[in-house]
Amino acid sequence: MYRSHNCGELRMSHQGQEVTLSGWVQKTRNLGGLTFVDLRDRYGITQLVFNMDTDAELTEKARKLGREFVIKATGLVAERGSKNPNRPTGDIEINVTTLDILNPAKTPPFTIEEETDGGDDLRMKYRYLDLRRAPLQRNLFFRSKLAIETRKYLADQGFIEVETPNLIKSTPEGARDFVVPSRMNPGEFYALPQSPQTFKQILMVGGFDKYFQIVKCFRDEDLRADRQPEFTQIDCEMSFLTRDEILATFEGLTKNLFKEMLNVELEDFPKMAYDEAMERYGSDKPDTRFGMEFVELTKESRGKDFPVFDNAEYVVGICAQGTAETYSNKDLKKLTEWLQRPQIGCKGLVYVKWNNDDTIKSTVGKFYSDDDLKGWLSKAGAEKGDTLFVLCGEKEKTQKQMNELRLELGRKLGLMDPKVFKPLWVVDFPLLEWDEESERFHAMHHPFTSPKVDEIPNMMNGDHEAMKRLKADAYDLVINGVEIGGGSIRIHDKELQSKNFKLLGFTEEEAEAQFGFLLGAFEYGAPPHGGIAFGFDRLNAVMNGVDSIRDFIAFPKNNSGRDMMIDAPSPVDEEQLNELYLDLKPIEKEES
Amino acid sequence: MYRSHNCGELRMSHQGQEVTLSGWVQKTRNLGGLTFVDLRDRYGITQLVFNMDTDAELTEKARKLGREFVIKATGLVAERGSKNPNRPTGDIEINVTTLDILNPAKTPPFTIEEETDGGDDLRMKYRYLDLRRAPLQRNLFFRSKLAIETRKYLADQGFIEVETPNLIKSTPEGARDFVVPSRMNPGEFYALPQSPQTFKQILMVGGFDKYFQIVKCFRDEDLRADRQPEFTQIDCEMSFLTRDEILATFEGLTKNLFKEMLNVELEDFPKMAYDEAMERYGSDKPDTRFGMEFVELTKESRGKDFPVFDNAEYVVGICAQGTAETYSNKDLKKLTEWLQRPQIGCKGLVYVKWNNDDTIKSTVGKFYSDDDLKGWLSKAGAEKGDTLFVLCGEKEKTQKQMNELRLELGRKLGLMDPKVFKPLWVVDFPLLEWDEESERFHAMHHPFTSPKVDEIPNMMNGDHEAMKRLKADAYDLVINGVEIGGGSIRIHDKELQSKNFKLLGFTEEEAEAQFGFLLGAFEYGAPPHGGIAFGFDRLNAVMNGVDSIRDFIAFPKNNSGRDMMIDAPSPVDEEQLNELYLDLKPIEKEES
Repeated sequence: MYRSHNCGELRMSHQGQEVTLSGWVQKTRNLGGLTFVDLRDRYGITQLVFNMDTDAELTEKARKLGREFVIKATGLVAERGSKNPNRPTGDIEINVTTLDILNPAKTPPFTIEEETDGGDDLRMKYRYLDLRRAPLQRNLFFRSKLAIETRKYLADQGFIEVETPNLIKSTPEGARDFVVPSRMNPGEFYALPQSPQTFKQILMVGGFDKYFQIVKCFRDEDLRADRQPEFTQIDCEMSFLTRDEILATFEGLTKNLFKEMLNVELEDFPKMAYDEAMERYGSDKPDTRFGMEFVELTKESRGKDFPVFDNAEYVVGICAQGTAETYSNKDLKKLTEWLQRPQIGCKGLVYVKWNNDDTIKSTVGKFYSDDDLKGWLSKAGAEKGDTLFVLCGEKEKTQKQMNELRLELGRKLGLMDPKVFKPLWVVDFPLLEWDEESERFHAMHHPFTSPKVDEIPNMMNGDHEAMKRLKADAYDLVINGVEIGGGSIRIHDKELQSKNFKLLGFTEEEAEAQFGFLLGAFEYGAPPHGGIAFGFDRLNAVMNGVDSIRDFIAFPKNNSGRDMMIDAPSPVDEEQLNELYLDLKPIEKEES
Repeated sequence: MYRSHNCGELRMSHQGQEVTLSGWVQKTRNLGGLTFVDLRDRYGITQLVFNMDTDAELTEKARKLGREFVIKATGLVAERGSKNPNRPTGDIEINVTTLDILNPAKTPPFTIEEETDGGDDLRMKYRYLDLRRAPLQRNLFFRSKLAIETRKYLADQGFIEVETPNLIKSTPEGARDFVVPSRMNPGEFYALPQSPQTFKQILMVGGFDKYFQIVKCFRDEDLRADRQPEFTQIDCEMSFLTRDEILATFEGLTKNLFKEMLNVELEDFPKMAYDEAMERYGSDKPDTRFGMEFVELTKESRGKDFPVFDNAEYVVGICAQGTAETYSNKDLKKLTEWLQRPQIGCKGLVYVKWNNDDTIKSTVGKFYSDDDLKGWLSKAGAEKGDTLFVLCGEKEKTQKQMNELRLELGRKLGLMDPKVFKPLWVVDFPLLEWDEESERFHAMHHPFTSPKVDEIPNMMNGDHEAMKRLKADAYDLVINGVEIGGGSIRIHDKELQSKNFKLLGFTEEEAEAQFGFLLGAFEYGAPPHGGIAFGFDRLNAVMNGVDSIRDFIAFPKNNSGRDMMIDAPSPVDEEQLNELYLDLKPIEKEES
């Protein structure tokens, strides 16, 4: 037997009992004749005491214990002289009578504490040590519990969890697939799923009515800090329901998760059309924890001989409260430079300060009278002490830039309280995006998304321009500016699906080769259906007010897609490649 | 709104209510002026009635409905004239007032009934239709519920579910890996996990204490009927526990699953050493629903001038009760031929019949007296009316053959009741298997399995022959002759692990390149740990008394590893291969 109790459970009520504990040495302290060892496991920390007067040999042994040694200790539970109220086991200690070293440890390359001194690369390489730290343990326990609560809620609602395959078929639509050569079918490849989309639709055609799965998905994309080549989705699909019934189901799920996990009661989720979100926030995933909404000033700024505004398609302002007196010229210069970085690409930043003494100060003061500027301020709902920031240019681009500015000001002004959660359904997305470069349409959501029902005649018969205006029955769940989930009502009619494939540039043969099974399924009694997928890694991060998903993943990959701990990917044997009928091409720098 | 109720919930208490149902047309019957439509969904079947006298147009519409049309119908719940006691909704019917065809259907290529007329290939290709059949729906609901109960039990026991990565590192040990070329790391490959073995051990080193995961695993092996290239495991690992504590935990899980799913109370699981299982049943996964245990007759059969037995390393018998008078000479001839097939490879079959009139009849009667033969019968516990079957030859081979014979007789004699469940822990497996062909040891379980603790000195210092005798702290859970789970206490000491790698033929460099992270982890405070993995697909099949796992998998692959529905694997674009720096070799018939 390695332990009678764990390191988190002993209390005064155990006083006098003989117990055995096992765990890791967090630290040792020698105080005169006494040696104290903090013994740690997943459940807590318990203090062990060794007394030189009682057992000198044992105490000498204890003194030699290094950090992270794995030991087993038996002794009597005793009341502590000086109690530690910050620790659940702080009332007691163990007077040790037997000590076994189960495994010694080299000195760890970084400290195993709440805050560590280890850099990212070191922590990734020694992930097994990083995982011993309380913050990572909390994160992964949170994740495990979130999965349990998700499954519980959905099962209670009559959903069935079905495992869909991981070795599927490569399709050029969407992101890049990871492919898997098939030894038994030489020259052919499986693909790892970017999502179980077609399978969950097939399950609806198969009559499963309510499906879910917490499932790994794969995308071979160039990675950013918040992307991983493999990620986890809560994937759901339902039959015979309208959009609003589907949204109500997943609003229920989300509310339940916040209540169970964080004891937060979310209010009913507002719905906002995509077009409205773009006008008010310049983003299809607005952070609605704070206002600072867009105010269009295109008309108001015209005709005053300021050519920059006169020639701009779009002029837009936002009001930053209380910044007129607190933002120095240096602050404003820095903000302007931040906006001028190539990632954002603003030409410049116009501001209008309404000082507390009622004076107006603006970078465009020589073109506009104080009355003009007060008109703008008033339209933006500004008050004395506020600053109005104004950007202009091509509309779509300027909306994006202003969205970045709004978020940056929100961060600077402390308007993004990580304890406040503001969910929002964004609905009525465009169905198709026209890509000028490739001269073709892309699906804004994916090729299986249905247009809104009153758009179907336009889609079947409309001209090219009408296609650009089609609205989809698609929806995103946004919380605090992060897209947590996205879904749509799906097409369940073969003609409509074929038309959509055609609009997306598939020939009939290509559509048949890649999605023939789905088109076939639609001919054998496909029910109306729709669904959603939640980004599970991201949901964890957002619920914890954290930006990066990496610390909610036990074994994440770095930005080159490498697992630093196991050192993967890696070369494989020639023999293995031969069995797969594959040759490696010579690897050179790409030509420019 | 598509429905106010589902097709399984309406009862007499709903009489008079207006309801709306949606679903699939199971069948239509025209009886005079009335047309009846059975409407089906996941939840049940409800009878719709159309009356020519009340609404001729509507009834005409209903008469044209084909099988598997998807419809929506609104009407009043009414008591049925002739009730159907076999159907939960059999007391009522719906007098339909509105009918919408949501989606028509072509005539399905096979019947959507409890028993279908579709062959395997057709059912795989039209899996979405096969999935509508009640048996498959029951199987997948069973599977979903089994996963829920598994998670519930393990979470209640303090286990945390952690997702381990799917893009890992290829290792030549064990079965063949599926590999995934990495675009971002040209010339390098990920592998799909055969199991999360090293990751769960790393989680123990990381202090997670109790881990589980229901997880997809992958093996690129030639497929048999009960194998799939991707399969699902209940994967578990625990720290600071002895073998028997670990077995008790998973015995608890198994008992709980049988209780919750089948209302079966399993008795405590016996433990049997591998050596004993081989002696008594000739198998490390004996079906203990019936006896028919092996009786060694090597000594008893010697010295009577029957050279076949005199020269045999091993002579063994089993007693088939009540077959002396019921098995004809023709039956015995067929049984002998069955044993002589190359898959089993017996030279012949000896029998000793103890007839009800107390006479003895045997194929070896001219070598042995009735007293000799009665001695054998007595040793085998035979009674009048029984037959003793005897095989001989090289011991290990003969044990396997006799195991096959025992199972065949068990099937023929109806001794394998699918409603009876006999679990068994098989323990103390050999650590290493010597492979004569490659002249090297293989790990019987896997390279991370610990020898039993008192074997460690032998392992570190023993000679080659001693290595063959080493016992592992490994265990299998066997139910009704099927290996449901397997696991072991793991090595947690770097020296011992290095020694094991060396015995398995790894050079130090190879061990370091492939498992350096694990050897490193063992130096930083690895706790004693062990675990188990249950075959989840197989557990579903065994609990339902079914041999094949295929009907418990929503989208299985055929024996060539193909998904017949989506037609995967398939060729990929040249461009995609270029991005991966891969060339396809010309594919020819292999040379012999």
